[in-house]
Amino acid sequence: MAYKPSVPKGTRDFSPDVLAKRNHIFNTIREIYERYGFMPIETPSMENLDTLTGKYGNEGDKLLFKVLNSGDYLKDVPEETFLSRDSQKISPMIAEKGLRYDLTVPFARYVVQHRNDIIMPFKRYQIQPVWRADRPQKGRYREFFQCDADIIGSESLINETELILIIDDVFSKLGINVKIRVNNRKILMGMAEASGLASKFYDFTIALDKLDKTGPERVLEELESIGASESSIKKLESIFGAKAGNEANLDSISEFIADSETGIQGIAEMRQILRYHKETGTSNMLIADTTLARGLNYYTGTIFEVIASDLAFGSLCGGGRYDDLTGIFGLPGLSGVGISFGADRIYDVMNELKLFADTDSVHPNLLFVNFGGDEELYSLKALTKLRSEKISAEIYPDPVKIKKQMSYASSRNIPYVVIAGEEERNSNNFNLKVMETGVQLKVTFSELIDFITKQ
Amino acid sequence: MAYKPSVPKGTRDFSPDVLAKRNHIFNTIREIYERYGFMPIETPSMENLDTLTGKYGNEGDKLLFKVLNSGDYLKDVPEETFLSRDSQKISPMIAEKGLRYDLTVPFARYVVQHRNDIIMPFKRYQIQPVWRADRPQKGRYREFFQCDADIIGSESLINETELILIIDDVFSKLGINVKIRVNNRKILMGMAEASGLASKFYDFTIALDKLDKTGPERVLEELESIGASESSIKKLESIFGAKAGNEANLDSISEFIADSETGIQGIAEMRQILRYHKETGTSNMLIADTTLARGLNYYTGTIFEVIASDLAFGSLCGGGRYDDLTGIFGLPGLSGVGISFGADRIYDVMNELKLFADTDSVHPNLLFVNFGGDEELYSLKALTKLRSEKISAEIYPDPVKIKKQMSYASSRNIPYVVIAGEEERNSNNFNLKVMETGVQLKVTFSELIDFITKQ
Repeated sequence: MAYKPSVPKGTRDFSPDVLAKRNHIFNTIREIYERYGFMPIETPSMENLDTLTGKYGNEGDKLLFKVLNSGDYLKDVPEETFLSRDSQKISPMIAEKGLRYDLTVPFARYVVQHRNDIIMPFKRYQIQPVWRADRPQKGRYREFFQCDADIIGSESLINETELILIIDDVFSKLGINVKIRVNNRKILMGMAEASGLASKFYDFTIALDKLDKTGPERVLEELESIGASESSIKKLESIFGAKAGNEANLDSISEFIADSETGIQGIAEMRQILRYHKETGTSNMLIADTTLARGLNYYTGTIFEVIASDLAFGSLCGGGRYDDLTGIFGLPGLSGVGISFGADRIYDVMNELKLFADTDSVHPNLLFVNFGGDEELYSLKALTKLRSEKISAEIYPDPVKIKKQMSYASSRNIPYVVIAGEEERNSNNFNLKVMETGVQLKVTFSELIDFITKQ
Repeated sequence: MAYKPSVPKGTRDFSPDVLAKRNHIFNTIREIYERYGFMPIETPSMENLDTLTGKYGNEGDKLLFKVLNSGDYLKDVPEETFLSRDSQKISPMIAEKGLRYDLTVPFARYVVQHRNDIIMPFKRYQIQPVWRADRPQKGRYREFFQCDADIIGSESLINETELILIIDDVFSKLGINVKIRVNNRKILMGMAEASGLASKFYDFTIALDKLDKTGPERVLEELESIGASESSIKKLESIFGAKAGNEANLDSISEFIADSETGIQGIAEMRQILRYHKETGTSNMLIADTTLARGLNYYTGTIFEVIASDLAFGSLCGGGRYDDLTGIFGLPGLSGVGISFGADRIYDVMNELKLFADTDSVHPNLLFVNFGGDEELYSLKALTKLRSEKISAEIYPDPVKIKKQMSYASSRNIPYVVIAGEEERNSNNFNLKVMETGVQLKVTFSELIDFITKQ
């Protein structure tokens, strides 16, 4: 066969078994979001490109999937531009729409667009795919799901606490041991100020972000090269090496950044979160980690990152507080805080740690063997009644050899098979086979219902 | 404000209330599909354009959303083609991928690609959005959801019966009274043969498809104009006017098409479906309607169409049997049958008939008023315990005026509010307000749990 059907690079088909496991993750997250009072919204897969462009930096803009305008899309490109053959310049004239790159920018657009209908504080969650024209590699896809929750319109740190509790509940329910790292961008600003790098805050965070990857020495070198003072380097070295508890870490750093007003506020916010934490507790470890940086520039307060304890796998969930996300769409002054679970990475971790139960798959409880003729009608009638009792069941559609039908049942993991041939039909009962043990039982219809509903 | 955020034409944001209602529809369909033994799959939003192009006719090809290649996409367009400025010719060189147009073609592609892992007969369902660059109008969107179920690899008519039962169950559960119209393309072929239009079968079905819209006279005129014999016109007139029961209709038409082998086979298939129907029954009316045509050309056997009984609203669900869907991807000879629910149209009908329950919305059961300070910690602790009992609850994040907090609770339809101020904290109990009646109860924590879980 010359033609070989395939899916685009970096995208995937999900077969029933995989999808059942993925849905287990989505359902867990959804259930817990709703338990915390978050409400779902959905936004279109396509957004106008003027909504998306410029929100993710130059690199991000390059990764946007753009949708070609319909009809004679080249018609309105000015002659001169057309002849330039400059793909980048021509793009905005032939493609007005793009596929959503994350759920945060569409959420900001949503809030501004619907601001008259939204009750603040607004707690929304959103579980939808996003698309990025990234180079595909292991664990990185061009279409993947994000599971976001944000609270917008409240500056209270109890919101941060709620998100920490959600993270704790989700990973406990999924069975993944995690470390929940928390920091505050204001503390980082304090550290930058104390190091003489206030004007180079962005570079400071970028250097810090590499701590896990390259180790403290390299980071200190980089900080020195961008101008960190000698005394600060020593202090930072001890901070990077600190393994003390949450409170002690904060004590030690607050000396260092005592002259930074912003830094002190960051420390106070962190202490309040730890105070709330004392009341609520978490099953997973909460770490006030003053070296956590996170790449995204729009965070202005608390930041979160979650990593698996039993496996080196990168971040499974992250987020933070932003003070002005909707400002870009003309509605300034709304503070919000949010998290995002990376469902695809969580799936990979659970797979690797063998955390999926066998029950996370979809199959009917019961198969009726098909003997054709009147036996088929007899089974069909019973089947219809079972389904009206919400029992999931099916009949093999063709009256082929029993062996083939049994092998279908076993490869689909159907636990019970009903064999109702002429004899059973004449005596108005059923022969129920338990696939796991091979045991066969002769039962009436009401015994059959009883048996199945009790399993 | 100069910039006004918006979504692309023909697409929609779904706010929590609307989404809860939509999810009620999706969950109903999903639950019933699984009860019948169908397993979910998902395919990527983007397909390679060579998978999609040519499968939906010329008109369909024009409605495909195409995704611009990344990088310098114009680089590889040959000079001559580029200078032609021919949008249609240049398209395939600058856009390799497109957004899925329906779920049927991706399913066919999936079956062929994964044929070695699939157990036949394969029963799959798929609930995902599709995209069409159609002109948006009332009830027609550029992004909308399809909910498909197909059985592939079995020619048994019991599959058709299962799909009829699914249709019946879904609409019964949703509370919409419908008529389930069934026909067979083979009967239509018999009618075309008997009318001397065997070579014009496609035109015959197109004319017939207009019966509901333009009435029998116009259709007969059209059939006459494309060459239907005089005697057949008389016969067709009586068929179009028939209001007799299912069996009588079949008797009358089988005389007309007695010379057509295909037609007779179609009648036999329809009779078998009615025979199954006698055993299973349906709550909604099943109509063997020999005038039902359906537009899609790949149907070769049974066809279905579902319309609301209480409202003129077009088709809510449709489908049929196809003998060679996967042939286009190199795997011939696989027969299948499927249906597709149009969730967006079902939503509109349910809205119009006021069939959504108030409970089809997402909100927490309980709100704790926030008094700040120690009272806040007291409430937070109780809240955390409630949630561990799977009770959905939240605390207002800021200690603002009680009036504002109560108005938040009422606009979010939160049924219970806990007011735990200094007095309650000191006596270790809670003040529970039932929002509907205004009644306030003084309760201990365990009474609070009891009360809420019993509601």
